[in-house]
Amino acid sequence: MKRITNPPITLWDEVLQRPTQTIDDIEATVNEVFSEVQKKGNYALAKYTNLFDGVTLENLEVSKEEIDNASNLITSELKEAIQLAKANITKFHKAQETKPVLVNTQEGVKCWQEKRPIEKVGLYIPGGSAPLFSTILMLAIPASLAGCKEIVLCTPPQEDGSINPAILYTAQLCGVTKLYKVGGIQAIAAMTFGTETIPKVYKIFGPGNQFVTVAKQLSTRYNVAIDMPAGPSELLVFADETANPAFVSSDLLSQAEHGADSQVVLVSTKASVLDAVAIEIEAQLALLPRKEVASKAISNSKMILVESSEIALNLINNYAPEHFIVVAKDESFFVENIINAGSVFIGNYTPESAGDYASGTNHTLPTNGYAKQYSGVNLDSFLKSITFQKITKKGIQNIGNAIELMADAEGLQAHKNAVSLRLKELIKE
Amino acid sequence: MKRITNPPITLWDEVLQRPTQTIDDIEATVNEVFSEVQKKGNYALAKYTNLFDGVTLENLEVSKEEIDNASNLITSELKEAIQLAKANITKFHKAQETKPVLVNTQEGVKCWQEKRPIEKVGLYIPGGSAPLFSTILMLAIPASLAGCKEIVLCTPPQEDGSINPAILYTAQLCGVTKLYKVGGIQAIAAMTFGTETIPKVYKIFGPGNQFVTVAKQLSTRYNVAIDMPAGPSELLVFADETANPAFVSSDLLSQAEHGADSQVVLVSTKASVLDAVAIEIEAQLALLPRKEVASKAISNSKMILVESSEIALNLINNYAPEHFIVVAKDESFFVENIINAGSVFIGNYTPESAGDYASGTNHTLPTNGYAKQYSGVNLDSFLKSITFQKITKKGIQNIGNAIELMADAEGLQAHKNAVSLRLKELIKE
Repeated sequence: MKRITNPPITLWDEVLQRPTQTIDDIEATVNEVFSEVQKKGNYALAKYTNLFDGVTLENLEVSKEEIDNASNLITSELKEAIQLAKANITKFHKAQETKPVLVNTQEGVKCWQEKRPIEKVGLYIPGGSAPLFSTILMLAIPASLAGCKEIVLCTPPQEDGSINPAILYTAQLCGVTKLYKVGGIQAIAAMTFGTETIPKVYKIFGPGNQFVTVAKQLSTRYNVAIDMPAGPSELLVFADETANPAFVSSDLLSQAEHGADSQVVLVSTKASVLDAVAIEIEAQLALLPRKEVASKAISNSKMILVESSEIALNLINNYAPEHFIVVAKDESFFVENIINAGSVFIGNYTPESAGDYASGTNHTLPTNGYAKQYSGVNLDSFLKSITFQKITKKGIQNIGNAIELMADAEGLQAHKNAVSLRLKELIKE
Repeated sequence: MKRITNPPITLWDEVLQRPTQTIDDIEATVNEVFSEVQKKGNYALAKYTNLFDGVTLENLEVSKEEIDNASNLITSELKEAIQLAKANITKFHKAQETKPVLVNTQEGVKCWQEKRPIEKVGLYIPGGSAPLFSTILMLAIPASLAGCKEIVLCTPPQEDGSINPAILYTAQLCGVTKLYKVGGIQAIAAMTFGTETIPKVYKIFGPGNQFVTVAKQLSTRYNVAIDMPAGPSELLVFADETANPAFVSSDLLSQAEHGADSQVVLVSTKASVLDAVAIEIEAQLALLPRKEVASKAISNSKMILVESSEIALNLINNYAPEHFIVVAKDESFFVENIINAGSVFIGNYTPESAGDYASGTNHTLPTNGYAKQYSGVNLDSFLKSITFQKITKKGIQNIGNAIELMADAEGLQAHKNAVSLRLKELIKE
């Protein structure tokens, strides 16, 4: 890890710069796939599944038999682990439910706000080396709790045309209503436009590679919403001398194994902490199966020594990490004053892995500095608010004149007239 | 208005089609302005303000004198009206505050969610014929309540280089922290990149023409969030024989005066209601100052006769109107079952104008069918959620094994190891 001591504030952006992603060169491919899926539907999906996944499928939809059989193909230990995670995630997201907000802003002017589910949502789960069934827990559970009627899941088929049984098991457990074997750009295009088989959805969630990220961006041009913009995963740890260096190192490495472009940052006010962690990382790295990937990410990552907790906090808020672990005597200073972070992990026994899998919080979080303006996925991500109002005769008499004056000042006479007509009618009564 | 009787469900999309907007041809202009503002800052702002607004300014920032003086330039009646609106909007948005959510998902596993303000927000207020000070109320009030530290407002200068006093008065009243004389694409670019004078913000809110809409879309490529995608304003009214035809007509016309591309739809189960409204519209239209604009919108708009309230509701949910007025004996059927709408206005004495200005609800609402997946602007639009967790030794022993199993099944050994190390340490104790 690169070591930086007391960087001046003017250099913070440079020191903590994230890798720049070039997306221009893949936009042409994404546009082409979108255009063909829009025009040719399932035919285009078959073509690109063959081209990108090397599979020819008879059926896009996963059959009931495949889903029923999945439960037999995974161990009961793993099923119990998934069920425990489901229980915790359900508990935490169910607690996020809110009641309608009702206010009489004036006598006779009743205003309220109620949430309604987004009727159709699409979840994208990447394939590749690791079957990310944990992400299904994080997306399908709040979608079900919110009351979304149609929960569509797309995931690429494996080379033999099947889907990993842990994915199928988790999907049926968490209330996914439709499961399709399609991945990449073509999956996002299918959920954007709909095909003969796959329904069009209103909002698309889930992680993916650069192609999927650009495809999700493009989908927003066709009346689809997305969960949030995506980037490589990140972890920033603040540790003082109360932190166990072995634990800190294991957390940094768990982030580093995601990919060579993962962002890993350690901040401390004590040089001795940085020394101890540096030694531990070397020792643990040697034992990891994904050590090639992890060591690349580690070699790009930073250890930053700063003079005070206040400076550390400012630097962290400036960086806005996706994951923020704090192990420090004055942890409450950080917890109370952190403004920009996706999820915060506190103390020696709270590894990021806990939130990734089973503690109950959501692991779909804002990366790339987006914690400055985005929340991670939560129950509200699957709901929308509608406002209502009902005004009585007395009510319109209370606020009517103000509306007339404001509409007139904005030059909108018909807006004014809608009130004037009603007020005149009331004078007659 | 075009009259359609009992359209089959297969034709609903066609009957209620919104005008297609072509944005490709203005993207080049938007890209050019963005690129120049990014590179040249204030110099570029001066150039484009001269080009597009015909003004050469000495200072981009509105001076304290101009703000202080604005109060003298508008009537005390208008100031009182604005203050009444502010009181109601504040009451309704303040009531939207939520408490932190705290759950012990398992013994020793404490998870919570807290909201924090978005530190820097930008509000865009268009210039042109009407000074939209009401939109400042709708954006600056919730931004202030949320605790946003920097609330930047950009609005184009008038030909004499000044800003309409109603805009300045409302801005200072509602807590805007910085006010700049810059409009259009260049204003959005300035808030996206920052210049020598104008700060970069994290989220941009507010309406605008097609150029502003495309500019806001482009800003999302540079780590900025936006309130929502924009389109022409819309109103759908459902009226039965209990509705006053003159009131309904005045509401339809208040929508129509926004512009020739405004969407105006009337749905009823009674032909006599459509007849009565058609006559009233002609009569009222003749008296409107903006009758040319309004009559164009009216000639494109639709009256739809359907057989039942159930069919009407389905059609309305399918259309997802920005504004939905319902005046009907069975109003509660519509209120309870509406899923897709921005804001709902109930009964004869609840004109859309009330919500546009002064009842307390927000008038920044999803258009173009986006009510299917977006909320209107509300207090949460200026906040973001952070999740926190703190796990004890007992807690990690409760969930540690599940995490290990799941991480292992996803092939992420370092994630597993972060837990295993801690569990091993606890066995030693």
